[in-house]
Amino acid sequence: MIIEDLEGYLNLARKKGVLEEEEFEGLKYYRFSDDLRKYLRGTVVIGDKVVFGYHKIARILSLENGILSHIKEPFYVEEKADGYNVRVVSVDGKIVAFTRGGFICPFTTDRLPDLGDFETFFRNHPDMVIAGEVVGPGNPYNEFSPAGIEDIAFFAFDIFPLGSWRSLSAEERYAILEKYDIPQVQSFGKFFPETKEIERLKDILKSLNEKGAEGIVIKPQYGRRKFKYVTPFINISDIKYSSHLIAELPAEFFTQRIIRMMLSMDELKVVREENELKEIAQRLGEAFIEGFSKALKDYKSKGKVTWTFSLRMRTRERIELLVNHLNRASKIVKVSLVSVDKEDSYWRVVLEKHFLKSTDFMASALRGSFYFD
Amino acid sequence: MIIEDLEGYLNLARKKGVLEEEEFEGLKYYRFSDDLRKYLRGTVVIGDKVVFGYHKIARILSLENGILSHIKEPFYVEEKADGYNVRVVSVDGKIVAFTRGGFICPFTTDRLPDLGDFETFFRNHPDMVIAGEVVGPGNPYNEFSPAGIEDIAFFAFDIFPLGSWRSLSAEERYAILEKYDIPQVQSFGKFFPETKEIERLKDILKSLNEKGAEGIVIKPQYGRRKFKYVTPFINISDIKYSSHLIAELPAEFFTQRIIRMMLSMDELKVVREENELKEIAQRLGEAFIEGFSKALKDYKSKGKVTWTFSLRMRTRERIELLVNHLNRASKIVKVSLVSVDKEDSYWRVVLEKHFLKSTDFMASALRGSFYFD
Repeated sequence: MIIEDLEGYLNLARKKGVLEEEEFEGLKYYRFSDDLRKYLRGTVVIGDKVVFGYHKIARILSLENGILSHIKEPFYVEEKADGYNVRVVSVDGKIVAFTRGGFICPFTTDRLPDLGDFETFFRNHPDMVIAGEVVGPGNPYNEFSPAGIEDIAFFAFDIFPLGSWRSLSAEERYAILEKYDIPQVQSFGKFFPETKEIERLKDILKSLNEKGAEGIVIKPQYGRRKFKYVTPFINISDIKYSSHLIAELPAEFFTQRIIRMMLSMDELKVVREENELKEIAQRLGEAFIEGFSKALKDYKSKGKVTWTFSLRMRTRERIELLVNHLNRASKIVKVSLVSVDKEDSYWRVVLEKHFLKSTDFMASALRGSFYFD
Repeated sequence: MIIEDLEGYLNLARKKGVLEEEEFEGLKYYRFSDDLRKYLRGTVVIGDKVVFGYHKIARILSLENGILSHIKEPFYVEEKADGYNVRVVSVDGKIVAFTRGGFICPFTTDRLPDLGDFETFFRNHPDMVIAGEVVGPGNPYNEFSPAGIEDIAFFAFDIFPLGSWRSLSAEERYAILEKYDIPQVQSFGKFFPETKEIERLKDILKSLNEKGAEGIVIKPQYGRRKFKYVTPFINISDIKYSSHLIAELPAEFFTQRIIRMMLSMDELKVVREENELKEIAQRLGEAFIEGFSKALKDYKSKGKVTWTFSLRMRTRERIELLVNHLNRASKIVKVSLVSVDKEDSYWRVVLEKHFLKSTDFMASALRGSFYFD
C-alpha cells in the first residue's frame, strides 16, 4: 500500500504545520491536524500505511428534492447511527480505533473486543479499514445517546482499503460483513430516485423520528457521494443535551438545528393537529431551559459547569491514556478521574468533564461584568 | 461649537475610508461609517457642527452584582424604551433626526412635529442634541413594538451639546425637558447601591417584565457610564419577532437572548411553580416555531420572505427618500413601495421588506442543496 509521493505529502504537511507526531503504546504514527488536499484532517500515516481521514458527509434539508436533484441512479438507505466516528485498523497485529481527528482512542481501542469480532475480520482483510459509529451511554465523548443501547455498541458503515479513500459499495460491504460478527448500521435497502419511492422513504423517516433515531445516510449504488438527512426530533435532543454549553458552543449549533427541525417537520408532515405543535414547542423550549438551568445550578453549587459520566474499560493502564487523550483533544474541557472500581472483569471509571469556557462565562455573568453587543 | 482639529479628523476619516458624504433635502453632511477614536460610528459633521455618535451601552447579566460592583454612588433608573435610537438636532433652522448610523431618517424627521414640541426646545437650546427612542408599530425599522402604543411615540433619554459627548445629568435633563412638551422615558427615580434598594429595583423589573417592557437603564448620578439590564420575557418577544430571519441573523442573536432570559428569570425569581416554567418553555419554543413557519409559508406562497408594514407620513416627497434610505442602509433587505393613500392629513404608506438572504436560503434548502457543517 505505498502511496504515490507519500514522503512529499509528509514534508509539505510538516512545512505547513499540520503534521503531528503521535504515539500509543509504542505505536508511532503521524496525524494530519488539518486538511491538505486529499489528505483530509484526521488522516493517519503509520510507516508506509495511510488511513485516510473520513470525509464529511453533505447534508440535505429537503429529502425529495435533495434526492431527485443529486441522484439519477439506484441508491441505498441506511440508518445514521448517533455516536462518534472511528476507523478501525490492524497495524502490525494490533487492532486500533482512530477518532475522526486521527488520534488512537484508548477507550475505543480497549473495548474493540466487546464491539465485534475484528480479529477474524482483519486476519482475512489485513489491508482494510472499517469505519463505524460507536453508540451508547458508556462513551467518553457524547452526552446524548439514543435510547435502547446499554453501555456501548459499534455499527460499521463503511469499508475501504488502506491507502485509498474509495469505499466498497453498500452491497459489497453487506456481503463481506455478514460473514463476520461485526454489527452494521441498519440498511433499509435499495431505492430508486422516484417520487413514489421517496414517499416510502418518508414513512421510514417518520418511524425513525418517532423512535428517536438520528436519520438516514443515502448512498448511491455507484460513486461515493453520500449524503444525509436527519429526523426532526433529533434536533430537539441535540439542543437538550447541549444547552448547558450554550455559552461556549458556536451559536449556529442551535439555530441550524431549529431550521433543520422546521424544514423536516414540514416535509414529513409530522404535525397533524394544533395540539401536537404545542407539545413540540414545549419540548423545544424545555430543551433550552433544562440544559442551561442544570449548568447554572451546577455552577452555583460547585463553582463549575461539568458533566460527570461513567464507562467501563478492560485495561487499567489505558484509563490514564484516555484522560490524557481527552485533555489533549480539547483546550476548553478539562477531564479528570473521579473514581476507578473493579466491576467483574472490567474497570468502572467515573470521569468529570469541566467545561472551562462555560464556567468562565457563568463566573463573569454572575459577578456582574459588562457586556457589549 | 468648533471642535479642536476637526479638519484633521475629517482628513484621517477620509483616508481610512470611514467618511461618507450625505445629503438630505439640500442639507449636506458627513457621516462616520465606523469608529475613529472618539468619533464613534454614526458621528455626523455638518459645517463646523459635530453630532457625536451615540455610544453603546454596556449590559449587565446580573442586576445585583452588576450594580454593586460598578457603582459606589447614587444612580437613576429609567425604563429602557424599545424602538430605534435617534439624535434630534436643529441645523440652520431645520430640525432633523439622525439614526444611530448617522443618516438623516426621512421618516422620523418627517414625523418629528407629531412626536414632541422640538421647535420650542431648539429655539431655546439651539446647540443641544436630544437623544431618544422612537417606539411603536408605525415605524420602518422594527417588527416588534411594545404593547400600548399606537402609531409611534418619542421618548427622550439624553441631552448633550453639539460637539460634546458629555450628557446632562439625569436630574438636569428631567428639569429641562419638563418645561417642554417632549416626552421622556419613565424614570423610577434615585437609588443607592445597597442590597435593600436593589430588592426594590427587582420588584420594578418584575412588573416591567409582566407588562412586556424591555428593561431598565442605570445612570450613575455622576459620570456617564450607563448600563442596561433587560427583563426575561422581552427575550422571548425578540426571538418571536426575529425567528423568520433565523437563517440570516447572527446566530448569537438567539442564543444570547436565551442566556439573558435564563439568568434574569433566576435572579428575579420569576418562576414560582413548575407549571409556570412549562408555560415559559412553550412560549419560547413557539417563538422559534411561529416565526420560521411564517417565513416558510411566505416563501412557498410568494417565493420570498417578507415583512409588509404600514406607516404614516406628512410629506409625499419624503416617501421616496425613505425607501431610498432603507435600501441604502442594508444590502440584504430590499424595500419596495406597495401603496400610498391619503389618510386625513397624512399619507398612509405600505412598504414591503424583502429579506434577500432568507429568501436565498429557503430557495437553496428547498431545492435540495448540499450543506456541509
